[in-house]
Amino acid sequence: MKKLHQLYDGQAKTVFATDDPNAVILSFKDEATAYGGLKRAHIDGKGAMCNRISNHLMRLLEENGIPTHYMEEISDTDTLVKKVRLLPIAVICRNVSAGTLSSRLGVPDGTPLREKIVEFHYRGADLSDRLVNEYHISAMGWATRPVLAQITAMAEKINEILTRTYKACGVELIDFGLEFGFTVDGMLVLGDEISPDTCRLWDSSTHEKLDKDRFRMDMEEVAEAYQEIGRRLLGE
Amino acid sequence: MKKLHQLYDGQAKTVFATDDPNAVILSFKDEATAYGGLKRAHIDGKGAMCNRISNHLMRLLEENGIPTHYMEEISDTDTLVKKVRLLPIAVICRNVSAGTLSSRLGVPDGTPLREKIVEFHYRGADLSDRLVNEYHISAMGWATRPVLAQITAMAEKINEILTRTYKACGVELIDFGLEFGFTVDGMLVLGDEISPDTCRLWDSSTHEKLDKDRFRMDMEEVAEAYQEIGRRLLGE
Repeated sequence: MKKLHQLYDGQAKTVFATDDPNAVILSFKDEATAYGGLKRAHIDGKGAMCNRISNHLMRLLEENGIPTHYMEEISDTDTLVKKVRLLPIAVICRNVSAGTLSSRLGVPDGTPLREKIVEFHYRGADLSDRLVNEYHISAMGWATRPVLAQITAMAEKINEILTRTYKACGVELIDFGLEFGFTVDGMLVLGDEISPDTCRLWDSSTHEKLDKDRFRMDMEEVAEAYQEIGRRLLGE
Repeated sequence: MKKLHQLYDGQAKTVFATDDPNAVILSFKDEATAYGGLKRAHIDGKGAMCNRISNHLMRLLEENGIPTHYMEEISDTDTLVKKVRLLPIAVICRNVSAGTLSSRLGVPDGTPLREKIVEFHYRGADLSDRLVNEYHISAMGWATRPVLAQITAMAEKINEILTRTYKACGVELIDFGLEFGFTVDGMLVLGDEISPDTCRLWDSSTHEKLDKDRFRMDMEEVAEAYQEIGRRLLGE
């Protein structure tokens, strides 16, 4: 599969065309950004680690009946995926209150939730996310209600699978973001990535943060935390 | 019915106990506040006008099968209502984009919506409102999903009735807020008030604002706008 011209350059990944009009290459970068790009850094090995973790989890989800964009890992940092028209909606699944949810609900970080939460956030042109509900999404034509119902069911099943998988290796899955979209042939699939860049992951015993919050909060050993997740998840 | 001690002093109303443990008196004030109390003013006659408009609309809703807290208008500014334990949730119904919705969706004020929107906002201890969804409300125990379903159905029906009523007197109902709660005997009812303090109302032809936005936006003739709504709605 030939890597052709660049289609899109994102915060953590670059997307390249291929000679298959139905497939693109995701190239994971060592760059980290936060707070809408105000904070930036280079983190050695992050791209390769996120690529491997995400591919492992996408394959696991596929085995459990969740359709994803995953096709084939083609190098340490590059993965061939189905070309997907992503919806302008980020889906956030939450098991424990952290980050913006804690401010919204007025509770401390780490507060357990009686019920697993699913949120939709509209991803505006400026890439800032704003909480929206199904009425907003339907009224603006970003997705139909049947598509939202399908996405919600998929997100809840993904949360079950990932929570169980992380728990088995001593990691608590606090929350994570998902993106969904349609392939060229109209199939609704999970796109983007699942990695310490897009999940909050705490050590089950010590509650140590093993995710991008280390970077956001100016903590040390960001690369080491990502490697620790890779080590536990991939058994290496 | 005897007005006893004050139970609560709000931004636009004071609540008094009565000698009936199941009833309280709402006393509408001439005070206006906005931006979490940062902006304040006295508006002559506002209390009486909101009291009369709200009672008119509550009676209209009762006639149309919506249970409310309304019992009896006892003076220009005072109304006897059922004692209600309000949920910490404001329900916002929207027909046209305005205010915070326009910022959230990234559209100009006045943008028509393909679908009528219902939003839930959590009313925190500091009285600031934050958009939440049904998962948040259920997970925090603020209301159960069956109660939310009932509230949503009531809010949609109220929107239909009020939109039709305002349209008949040349006013476009842009959006409005509702509060629901449980009476002493456990009935879910509409509480609070429905007035130019809690609705966005535009003249159907000129789109002139005839509601609290005149106060928020430092426009003149706030009292006159409220009187104009009263005149059109009550036919006086």
